[in-house]
Amino acid sequence: QNVTVDLDRRQRCGFPEVVYGEGKSDDAVAAVFDELLARGEPALATRISAAQAETLLTRLPGARYNPVARTLRRNPAGAEPAGGRGRAAVVSAGSTDLPVAEEARETLNWMGVDVTMVQDVGVAGPHRLPERVAEIVDSDAVVVVAGMEGALPSVVGGYVPCPVIGVPTSVGYGANFQGLSALLSMLNSCASNVTVVNIDAGFKGGYLAGLIATR
Amino acid sequence: QNVTVDLDRRQRCGFPEVVYGEGKSDDAVAAVFDELLARGEPALATRISAAQAETLLTRLPGARYNPVARTLRRNPAGAEPAGGRGRAAVVSAGSTDLPVAEEARETLNWMGVDVTMVQDVGVAGPHRLPERVAEIVDSDAVVVVAGMEGALPSVVGGYVPCPVIGVPTSVGYGANFQGLSALLSMLNSCASNVTVVNIDAGFKGGYLAGLIATR
Amino acid sequence: QNVTVDLDRRQRCGFPEVVYGEGKSDDAVAAVFDELLARGEPALATRISAAQAETLLTRLPGARYNPVARTLRRNPAGAEPAGGRGRAAVVSAGSTDLPVAEEARETLNWMGVDVTMVQDVGVAGPHRLPERVAEIVDSDAVVVVAGMEGALPSVVGGYVPCPVIGVPTSVGYGANFQGLSALLSMLNSCASNVTVVNIDAGFKGGYLAGLIATR
Amino acid sequence: QNVTVDLDRRQRCGFPEVVYGEGKSDDAVAAVFDELLARGEPALATRISAAQAETLLTRLPGARYNPVARTLRRNPAGAEPAGGRGRAAVVSAGSTDLPVAEEARETLNWMGVDVTMVQDVGVAGPHRLPERVAEIVDSDAVVVVAGMEGALPSVVGGYVPCPVIGVPTSVGYGANFQGLSALLSMLNSCASNVTVVNIDAGFKGGYLAGLIATR
Amino acid sequence: QNVTVDLDRRQRCGFPEVVYGEGKSDDAVAAVFDELLARGEPALATRISAAQAETLLTRLPGARYNPVARTLRRNPAGAEPAGGRGRAAVVSAGSTDLPVAEEARETLNWMGVDVTMVQDVGVAGPHRLPERVAEIVDSDAVVVVAGMEGALPSVVGGYVPCPVIGVPTSVGYGANFQGLSALLSMLNSCASNVTVVNIDAGFKGGYLAGLIATR
Amino acid sequence: QNVTVDLDRRQRCGFPEVVYGEGKSDDAVAAVFDELLARGEPALATRISAAQAETLLTRLPGARYNPVARTLRRNPAGAEPAGGRGRAAVVSAGSTDLPVAEEARETLNWMGVDVTMVQDVGVAGPHRLPERVAEIVDSDAVVVVAGMEGALPSVVGGYVPCPVIGVPTSVGYGANFQGLSALLSMLNSCASNVTVVNIDAGFKGGYLAGLIATR
Amino acid sequence: QNVTVDLDRRQRCGFPEVVYGEGKSDDAVAAVFDELLARGEPALATRISAAQAETLLTRLPGARYNPVARTLRRNPAGAEPAGGRGRAAVVSAGSTDLPVAEEARETLNWMGVDVTMVQDVGVAGPHRLPERVAEIVDSDAVVVVAGMEGALPSVVGGYVPCPVIGVPTSVGYGANFQGLSALLSMLNSCASNVTVVNIDAGFKGGYLAGLIATR
Amino acid sequence: QNVTVDLDRRQRCGFPEVVYGEGKSDDAVAAVFDELLARGEPALATRISAAQAETLLTRLPGARYNPVARTLRRNPAGAEPAGGRGRAAVVSAGSTDLPVAEEARETLNWMGVDVTMVQDVGVAGPHRLPERVAEIVDSDAVVVVAGMEGALPSVVGGYVPCPVIGVPTSVGYGANFQGLSALLSMLNSCASNVTVVNIDAGFKGGYLAGLIATR
Ligand SMILES: Nc1ncnc2c1ncn2[C@@H]1O[C@H](COP(=O)(O)O)[C@@H](O)[C@H]1O
Ligand SMILES: Nc1ncnc2c1ncn2[C@@H]1O[C@H](COP(=O)(O)O)[C@@H](O)[C@H]1O
Ligand SMILES: Nc1ncnc2c1ncn2[C@@H]1O[C@H](COP(=O)(O)O)[C@@H](O)[C@H]1O
Ligand SMILES: Nc1ncnc2c1ncn2[C@@H]1O[C@H](COP(=O)(O)O)[C@@H](O)[C@H]1O
Ligand SMILES: [Mg+2]
Ligand SMILES: [Mg+2]
Ligand SMILES: [Mg+2]
Ligand SMILES: [Mg+2]
Ligand SMILES: [Mg+2]
Ligand SMILES: [Mg+2]
Ligand SMILES: [Mg+2]
Ligand SMILES: [Mg+2]
Repeated sequence: QNVTVDLDRRQRCGFPEVVYGEGKSDDAVAAVFDELLARGEPALATRISAAQAETLLTRLPGARYNPVARTLRRNPAGAEPAGGRGRAAVVSAGSTDLPVAEEARETLNWMGVDVTMVQDVGVAGPHRLPERVAEIVDSDAVVVVAGMEGALPSVVGGYVPCPVIGVPTSVGYGANFQGLSALLSMLNSCASNVTVVNIDAGFKGGYLAGLIATR
Repeated sequence: QNVTVDLDRRQRCGFPEVVYGEGKSDDAVAAVFDELLARGEPALATRISAAQAETLLTRLPGARYNPVARTLRRNPAGAEPAGGRGRAAVVSAGSTDLPVAEEARETLNWMGVDVTMVQDVGVAGPHRLPERVAEIVDSDAVVVVAGMEGALPSVVGGYVPCPVIGVPTSVGYGANFQGLSALLSMLNSCASNVTVVNIDAGFKGGYLAGLIATR
Repeated sequence: QNVTVDLDRRQRCGFPEVVYGEGKSDDAVAAVFDELLARGEPALATRISAAQAETLLTRLPGARYNPVARTLRRNPAGAEPAGGRGRAAVVSAGSTDLPVAEEARETLNWMGVDVTMVQDVGVAGPHRLPERVAEIVDSDAVVVVAGMEGALPSVVGGYVPCPVIGVPTSVGYGANFQGLSALLSMLNSCASNVTVVNIDAGFKGGYLAGLIATR
Repeated sequence: QNVTVDLDRRQRCGFPEVVYGEGKSDDAVAAVFDELLARGEPALATRISAAQAETLLTRLPGARYNPVARTLRRNPAGAEPAGGRGRAAVVSAGSTDLPVAEEARETLNWMGVDVTMVQDVGVAGPHRLPERVAEIVDSDAVVVVAGMEGALPSVVGGYVPCPVIGVPTSVGYGANFQGLSALLSMLNSCASNVTVVNIDAGFKGGYLAGLIATR
Repeated sequence: QNVTVDLDRRQRCGFPEVVYGEGKSDDAVAAVFDELLARGEPALATRISAAQAETLLTRLPGARYNPVARTLRRNPAGAEPAGGRGRAAVVSAGSTDLPVAEEARETLNWMGVDVTMVQDVGVAGPHRLPERVAEIVDSDAVVVVAGMEGALPSVVGGYVPCPVIGVPTSVGYGANFQGLSALLSMLNSCASNVTVVNIDAGFKGGYLAGLIATR
Repeated sequence: QNVTVDLDRRQRCGFPEVVYGEGKSDDAVAAVFDELLARGEPALATRISAAQAETLLTRLPGARYNPVARTLRRNPAGAEPAGGRGRAAVVSAGSTDLPVAEEARETLNWMGVDVTMVQDVGVAGPHRLPERVAEIVDSDAVVVVAGMEGALPSVVGGYVPCPVIGVPTSVGYGANFQGLSALLSMLNSCASNVTVVNIDAGFKGGYLAGLIATR
Repeated sequence: QNVTVDLDRRQRCGFPEVVYGEGKSDDAVAAVFDELLARGEPALATRISAAQAETLLTRLPGARYNPVARTLRRNPAGAEPAGGRGRAAVVSAGSTDLPVAEEARETLNWMGVDVTMVQDVGVAGPHRLPERVAEIVDSDAVVVVAGMEGALPSVVGGYVPCPVIGVPTSVGYGANFQGLSALLSMLNSCASNVTVVNIDAGFKGGYLAGLIATR
Repeated sequence: QNVTVDLDRRQRCGFPEVVYGEGKSDDAVAAVFDELLARGEPALATRISAAQAETLLTRLPGARYNPVARTLRRNPAGAEPAGGRGRAAVVSAGSTDLPVAEEARETLNWMGVDVTMVQDVGVAGPHRLPERVAEIVDSDAVVVVAGMEGALPSVVGGYVPCPVIGVPTSVGYGANFQGLSALLSMLNSCASNVTVVNIDAGFKGGYLAGLIATR
């Protein structure tokens, strides 16, 4: 089973292909990383388990694993991307939403976007978000990560003039139905500037924000 | 088909039976109202359509119909209940949620509870609720009525020390699924003091708040 | 029932409030339009039925109704907004998706964004989209409107470097479940640049694209 | 990842913050407990697994773990809260519902509320509940915990004049769908005084009852 | 479109075919009735609308229409079936459940079974059913018809030694989801002797009870 | 946590209580078995895992475990119940449905009913059932156990004059949704004599058939 | 809104485009029909209402409307297609399934395929299908149309060596959920040769069978 | 529990019975294989786990296990089937869909059909499929395997004149709901020539294509 890297992706879509690590063999992931390195492209893989990371890190010198985000990255020249390609914020509701928020942050950094992280400002403590609006109000786009009732994007949407990308998480229990509750909340947001990606899709949330910030 | 009034309901549960008007004949509704009047009890019927009201008002002298709430009430001696049996607030997110909010208010008034109405303070305009918290913070219970993403109860819950009864409404479209979105949001609220009743159940929201306020 | 216009919305969010017309009285809609006119703001109302439009047009001189989009607009000085605030494309899959596509277009025009419409390029005739990619590839954002299996956003996503906002429609029958099929498709899109709004939410699709185009 | 304790929670909402233990590190839980102790507040954590408890008990002298309820508590001065702040009952349908009932009881005790436990009185043995109504009829609020068809809250609701908080559990199999059956039953209860919290949400059921009892 | 009557149905299954009237033409219904009459069989049609009944009654001399049950019957010799073929009870929760209960009763009478009707004994007034258990405890089978939370079959099941056939109805609103709530309740009944038929399937409930009673 | 045996269950319902073993401790199960033995009642427990059985068999002399059905039984005098209390058939569609079919058979035997087992006669080999109809046509009731599309009860229903109790199983994959497919099939059966119990509820299927057979 | 006919469809896919009439204007339908006629192609439109047909028949000389199938057809030279391009059978379960079966038949005839119709052979009368197997066993493909529990395709699949295309219909009530029950049944069919199209999709069922028959 | 091989299956349906390995004992699988060998029939088993394969391969000389497809095959004379009985293509969207695609391929090979595999041509890289259409356009049938949004069958359907059998896979996360998203997409395909089998049903997809190819 040959994995074919979509090599003119940057040409067509502005950024190279990103590896979705779930269920991929080490060989498959390493092959794409090597091919991208050869072309001077920064490589990103998401949904890389700790077990996958352990062996991949020995094979891919210079790669860096974020165990919370479960992302693997390797830069061609070795240094971080220069950054400075626009500004995004990643806002999360509770501390359990952190892995998804981190996946968004890693994606944005890989795209060269500067990121402000604002954590643990869920609606149950409604005084927390207003105190921190100043940090995010000038962003090009805001990624809002929330589980349970998923109300945070609507509230953030009322404070900022830029697009808000809601990322529902599967955090919760019972009638949460693995994130359905937060997903429906965000789709039905009464704030006009809220759009939505898949449950737990931190990568997509970050990527969309990055596309907006780097225009 | 005889309708039997549950006459020792006040004895057992504190308040007389309430008529659920949907699909009931005028005869059935009028019979219960007459029987309650004979015992000196205030009568309340919910989900009475405009068509039902038209004929019932001619049959039941002194009855009063609220066309927004779709409720019918008649008091034994004619006057409003004295009021003053505790304080509740009914908070609603958007103007389309008003019928459900009004049904809650009518129920609370019928129980003798003083009600503060706070309307159109949904989360999309997040500055609106804080400005009005002072009006509701001393309530014995707050009924929060919201459709679409149903986020308002969680936010209210963070501002008040009393129970918050969330009433999801079927207001919305698409992935709202007739109120499912708001219902799931409220059930998954991260605020500890939020409890939930059925979609569009203004009566139940008001009744629960009334039970708490009149203890 | 007073409707309160959120008058510092432009301040906070960049654009004035938009009226959601469903179930609103003529008085309510006209009041907001008058207030916005008084402040020199262009007014937009969505989900205005033909019946509502008939009476509103007599009350609101200079207003224009789009019966396909079901939108009502009125500009302060009378002329169209200048346009030229960025470029967006609205791509639709089939001719039955047109009302939703038109709602997106009206919203974008109201925001001053130039719009390219590309219709009837659904995936069943797979040669149709590639022929027209040139018209949309330089957009700041593309709104893709599709019912049934909702596959079009994924395909468009593979051809353009900008954000793609998928708007699922309720067009279809049987296992379409009123748009659920298209909604799930778009949320699960394998294209990284696809984000999603509610079923039939042409307004939101247009608004998000407009926010991106006018940055 | 700093956990920030919402320290003016008692001020605003009447009780200090409760730790939701699921997926939290020992450090995070212990930090909140220490901070609360320092302020003389009683600490409660829910959804603490046996594994978490083992290490936390060695770190938090004086803490007490309830393995059925999966709760951890520590009191400032060491003694139990005085109690006597109102009376609540926790009624459960079957013996498998006990963990949820115990979580409610622990929460109520932490709030200083006296609790009457009534177990194994599900509707299949319909003579069992009436025999025990006397024990609960004078409560300020009754928490009713039931899985499978979740019918018990409706029946209890017919016997008591106070609010009934239904807690559906995920006990059952097949068309139970992890508690959906009991949840829908309780939301559709024909008893006016029944309100509902999330599936398996013993903490919330107890907390609501406690708020009512301590008013 | 010829309708073919399954004429050896009584041979194979004990009773002649019953006409499901929904969407059938008058010709189709009348043809089956005539053919059954010719063979000396009693005819029953269910789900016959008032409009259908109006014309059918003029064509089918001696037929009798029950507008609540929406059933049409005609007996060969003209007289009622002798009855006395066992005893069944039909118990219903609320007055809105009556049409379904009546459909069950008509079916049982057509099978020659004596029926006891017990109405309006839903669980919200829990003292009502015990008072009437004596009337049903000696039945061969009990049909229990209930909407909303559908709890009644479980309770009846605890009082009688015979099979209980639960018929969920679509009576209710909101999270009732057209009878889903009652259906799931009955399928998850903790009473061992409860079995279930389709939502609003009064005919099936009656037919099953009749099969048991006439063995 | 005391388990209280419902000791007048035979009085009220005709048979002693059956233990639902899922999640019960050995002590709890053994206590009920001992109490029933003391009263000369045959004991049955369902959903007993192999692990539970291992220790229970050493504690309960004379008990017998059926590892396929996952049932445990013990008879007072030691011998099997006399049998001969009516005749039931248990028909299953495929070999993977056997555990549920066996649970039904054990339940029927415990009630003293003679059982005919007919296996592997699912509709995909449509010639198989007709060949075996003679073995079941004289039963008092037929339990039909089927997963996947759950079509077998409808077909059996067309061949027999007695009640057919459909037991959907969770056997299948994909759009089977853990038995939902078979459940809906059976509820919508076009055969008048088919009634339904919960997914995988072999015990209930057997119990209902037993109630009918022993009348 | 111009409708563009996909004119090289026959080239690419073997048959000309078919008009989906739902919500199309008369102008749109007539335009496609005229264009196809001009090229000597036979025209077919599905989901044409009686109202649409009335005006279209006056505009399109030689067109023929099937009010049961709701299809409109017009042949270039006027005569029926020669037929003889393979053989298909359309089998339906009940008489209410006829419209869907007829839509399949019209589609097959338009493709030039000879069709055998077998009606009213649902599984509740299990002796009916075997009697008619001879008529269908030599078909190139069999379309099986069934609502309610949708069991018929599985049974047919056991009798024929060719592909069986199941078409679930929305016929039924209650837990049928508008055809979901039949759809899931067919997807889970234990017969290897059964494939499925959308609920009520008679056109697709016929088209697939036609593709197979005309190879 | 005897497994009975349906030995006249080839007679009736054209191919011998295939073993569904899930949950079957080695004895059961081996018995069918031996019996088929004895009659000179090629044997195929699907859903055979690696563990099952390990022991079965020692018992069944000449059998071959495909660990990706999880299939086991044994040919009577030892050699591969001759092939040449028509041509089918198996097209898959992503590399994670390979197991399902391989199951389809093995099934087709077992039927003697020549298979072209086309992998990793999902819609996100829309230029990939057109480049490979030439390889599949002359097939008798095309099996298209896709997870996530399941859009590929619609696109393939627009390029080929033969039947397309869509096989949705459970590949994806979040709002994928274990393949529901892809299933609904394929059922709602706007391409006329797309039909669907169960989620992950590679066997069925291959079998249907094989039936068409071998006619
Ligand atoms: N709008 C409502 N929603 C839910 N329950 C209601 C409503 N109005 C009245 N009820 C309850 O329904 C019961 C009356 O049912 P019924 O006997 O059918 O009139 C009363 O006991 C009320 O407590
Ligand atoms: N068609 C629409 N769909 C979703 N939201 C809308 C739509 N039209 C307007 N809105 C938003 O709904 C809010 C207005 O709600 P209301 O105050 O009820 O008129 C506005 O702030 C708009 O941003
Ligand atoms: N078992 C529980 N279920 C629902 N909410 C809880 C539970 N335990 C604690 N909480 C609430 O969840 C919030 C804590 O969330 P966190 O900051 O993640 O610890 C607290 O404010 C509590 O009110
Ligand atoms: N497998 C089963 N499925 C459903 N109900 C059962 C089952 N086994 C026993 N029961 C019933 O569940 C009740 C016992 O519940 P418990 O008191 O928890 O043991 C008994 O009254 C039985 O009638
Ligand atoms: Mg790739
Ligand atoms: Mg009543
Ligand atoms: Mg507003
Ligand atoms: Mg916190
Ligand atoms: Mg018939
Ligand atoms: Mg018990
Ligand atoms: Mg077209
Ligand atoms: Mg077999």
